[in-house]
Amino acid sequence: MPRFFVQNKYISGTNVTIPAPDAVHIGRSLRMRLGDEITVCCEGIEYNCRILTISDESVECEVLSSGKSLNEADVKVTLFQAVPKGDKLDTIVQKAVELGAVRVCPVITARCVSRPDKKSFEKKRERLNRIALEAAKQSGRGIIPEISPLMTFDEAVSELAKQDFPVICYECGGINFSEVGLKSGSSIGVFIGSEGGFESGEVEKCTAAGAVAVGMGRRIMRCETAPLAALSIIMNLTGNI
Amino acid sequence: MPRFFVQNKYISGTNVTIPAPDAVHIGRSLRMRLGDEITVCCEGIEYNCRILTISDESVECEVLSSGKSLNEADVKVTLFQAVPKGDKLDTIVQKAVELGAVRVCPVITARCVSRPDKKSFEKKRERLNRIALEAAKQSGRGIIPEISPLMTFDEAVSELAKQDFPVICYECGGINFSEVGLKSGSSIGVFIGSEGGFESGEVEKCTAAGAVAVGMGRRIMRCETAPLAALSIIMNLTGNI
Repeated sequence: MPRFFVQNKYISGTNVTIPAPDAVHIGRSLRMRLGDEITVCCEGIEYNCRILTISDESVECEVLSSGKSLNEADVKVTLFQAVPKGDKLDTIVQKAVELGAVRVCPVITARCVSRPDKKSFEKKRERLNRIALEAAKQSGRGIIPEISPLMTFDEAVSELAKQDFPVICYECGGINFSEVGLKSGSSIGVFIGSEGGFESGEVEKCTAAGAVAVGMGRRIMRCETAPLAALSIIMNLTGNI
Repeated sequence: MPRFFVQNKYISGTNVTIPAPDAVHIGRSLRMRLGDEITVCCEGIEYNCRILTISDESVECEVLSSGKSLNEADVKVTLFQAVPKGDKLDTIVQKAVELGAVRVCPVITARCVSRPDKKSFEKKRERLNRIALEAAKQSGRGIIPEISPLMTFDEAVSELAKQDFPVICYECGGINFSEVGLKSGSSIGVFIGSEGGFESGEVEKCTAAGAVAVGMGRRIMRCETAPLAALSIIMNLTGNI
């Protein structure tokens, strides 16, 4: 069933309004009709709705049933991703959303080749948020994962340390993911390097702040493969895949 | 250190010959010199070599030390992948090699939109084998994973059933990967669907042949994401990531 996300203000009792541009998409591209059913998501709640009116400005729906989205993992995983070259962050965001991350925080680390400043990154962030929205619709998420503004390394470490399980994936080794003791219901932060990986001083700063260094096996993964492997493993170890 | 793969016939005692086109690459692109050290791999054995002579036809090396590649996983994972649309198989092969698969078998299943015949697929297979070779060099593999000729569904099921642990990932559910009881040292086959997933009859044929149906969680993954998630989880559960 088609899935749309709306802000809280568009839900009022048993009435849900879907504004443009989704309204146009529903009426014109999907050619939906009065009486058709759609799923509307808002902050982790899914509303099964029937369409009452359709215009280019808005689609009005009545709520048939609602409940907490069952598609959300029971862990809140934040991916701290050192900014890679080119458009690899697009792929990483898309896949991180499919794999159930709730937030992606792009970070500038010592070995990042691409080093945008925070302001110029905002335009890229708009695109990344659109990618996250589309991936959330396609993969059936209950929320739209958030792309945070670009972080400095120190900002990322401070945010990482707030998670129940802060993890840094280090190409020079560490314990196995299975040994971290990840628990369902927890918040998990996972920090992944860019093309050159991390400097040892960066790993030390993270572990000093409470993070656990985890090894990713002996094969060298591309920087866009490592986050997907880490998220897959985290979701499996916590019973979410 | 640069890594090259040679066939067995190029290794003779403590002498290793690297033929063209790698010889040209070593001499011209990498601008390596006599006395420089390189890693040569052959069938899972790594040879640490010193360069003795360089020409466009061949590079002659002496073996300084050799041993079984430590980068190979201790499980032999074969990915049976229903052929997806476009060039997604390129990405899947590259990532499967990084994640440690030993073989990728492209398969035509009921819901494949792209349906090449075996003969026309051979040209594509050449490219996929080149992608596997490059990924093996970059990720530090000890072998070059093999891309098999295109298989029919029945051929794939028969090959899948030969593995110690035959698994089919089914979007409509199954047991958790952790419940399969995967063991290190085993052969594992994992069958992944194309864009539309599997038909229930296909899953039944696989399970009748001894395969276990495994669910991949409640979020819908793109067909290029599912194999990477499955391989990551398999490598983690067997202690290889």
